[in-house]
Amino acid sequence: MLPSGRFRDCDSLTFPFVPGAPTMLADSRPDETRVQYVMRQVADYIGKGHLKVGDQLPSEAAFGERLGVSRPVVREAFGALAALNIIDTANGRRPRVSALSSQTLSISLDHAVRTEQISVQQVWETRRSLETETIALAAMRRSDDEAIRIRDLARAMADAERGSPALIEADIAMHKAIADASRNALMAKIIGAFEPLLEAAVPAAWRTRRTEDQHAAIIAKHLEMADTVLRRDAEAARRAMDEHFDRAIGAMLAVEDAA
Amino acid sequence: MLPSGRFRDCDSLTFPFVPGAPTMLADSRPDETRVQYVMRQVADYIGKGHLKVGDQLPSEAAFGERLGVSRPVVREAFGALAALNIIDTANGRRPRVSALSSQTLSISLDHAVRTEQISVQQVWETRRSLETETIALAAMRRSDDEAIRIRDLARAMADAERGSPALIEADIAMHKAIADASRNALMAKIIGAFEPLLEAAVPAAWRTRRTEDQHAAIIAKHLEMADTVLRRDAEAARRAMDEHFDRAIGAMLAVEDAA
Repeated sequence: MLPSGRFRDCDSLTFPFVPGAPTMLADSRPDETRVQYVMRQVADYIGKGHLKVGDQLPSEAAFGERLGVSRPVVREAFGALAALNIIDTANGRRPRVSALSSQTLSISLDHAVRTEQISVQQVWETRRSLETETIALAAMRRSDDEAIRIRDLARAMADAERGSPALIEADIAMHKAIADASRNALMAKIIGAFEPLLEAAVPAAWRTRRTEDQHAAIIAKHLEMADTVLRRDAEAARRAMDEHFDRAIGAMLAVEDAA
Repeated sequence: MLPSGRFRDCDSLTFPFVPGAPTMLADSRPDETRVQYVMRQVADYIGKGHLKVGDQLPSEAAFGERLGVSRPVVREAFGALAALNIIDTANGRRPRVSALSSQTLSISLDHAVRTEQISVQQVWETRRSLETETIALAAMRRSDDEAIRIRDLARAMADAERGSPALIEADIAMHKAIADASRNALMAKIIGAFEPLLEAAVPAAWRTRRTEDQHAAIIAKHLEMADTVLRRDAEAARRAMDEHFDRAIGAMLAVEDAA
């Protein structure tokens, strides 16, 4: 449902959904800076105008004139919005509405772990919580192609050598494929945000020092998970993922504690 | 464990962990802008220096000189890092390492929902996934004070009028108190990020049009949840939260569909 107020003619310097003359900071809040004020106005412009990903926004000059602030203030606000992945200002082009990505959360997570505000164990607990649900949703919602891709990735894990880069790659790709098949873009993005962090934070010791038994158990569990998704058995899928986290993660944190 | 490289003397213009002369963009990547380069360097400075929340960073001028970039470029990078909540530049003071907050994720979520990249149902699925786990962790880890506070909030809900602001306030506060008692700051921050969104996105219809029976079931479920946390029964806690989402959310989405 597109309201009649929807507009794409962003070359226009007028802001069609706000009648009247420039507000000149009229509705700024006492606790915000000018940059924050402009950021809020741009976000509002996107929301109230029902803009979608890829839609063009008015220029820096247009926002500056409309809001009664200087170009450098608008430039700073645009920069902050680009950092937050709300708008895309790549290559100095006219800004566009940006697509949700894992990057912003990923940067925050990386910072929080590096500054010891959150622990690796907390990250694992969060993944476990989300991934037991994404696999259950994947079992219910996956396409046939997705189910086959997930199974093929589990098989690739089984074929890879213990501790090899190919194993780790297939492992990460399988968890990502499950998240995507859940048809929940938010959970998939949050899970995706953990990826760079895991590559850095998961103790290499765990990957290389797994015993033959641990390795075999992990492979078996991934083949089982792929099978539950193929069978559309959401309850078994949830249980298999939960057991995977119980064992694999328990063992990994034990290695970490010992290190 | 603090490495010997830890430093707090940020008035110094030298960057102790990188030996030698200014790099002058020597290690910039081909695909990043100067602003992105500076952002990465500042994040690295925090990480490699093992800085903690509240620690002071060198000034704009110092970073500009060290990295061989102009002041406006550093200013823009600082602005973006402040938007991402990596550093705090409030009131024009020397920047400090910032604490993880829900705000950054909250802005992204709000944007993603407003631009219809994610649906309200996906937000509910994500909450359900996280909150069934936070209540289980809360049951295991809560202090006595926390258990009592959670119970008091459930009682406040029971005492509040159907559809009243006091009911909604106690409801939100109870879910937040459970998340905090989980001792998982990451899950608590993610759940916290949904708060402003829910206030805007949850159909008011659901809050006001609940039948007497629905209202009574919700109150009973919250009293039950508080009791499971008090009894340290993680499994019952998880089940109660899951049932709460099953019923309350199912009913809410039905109202939404009908609207």
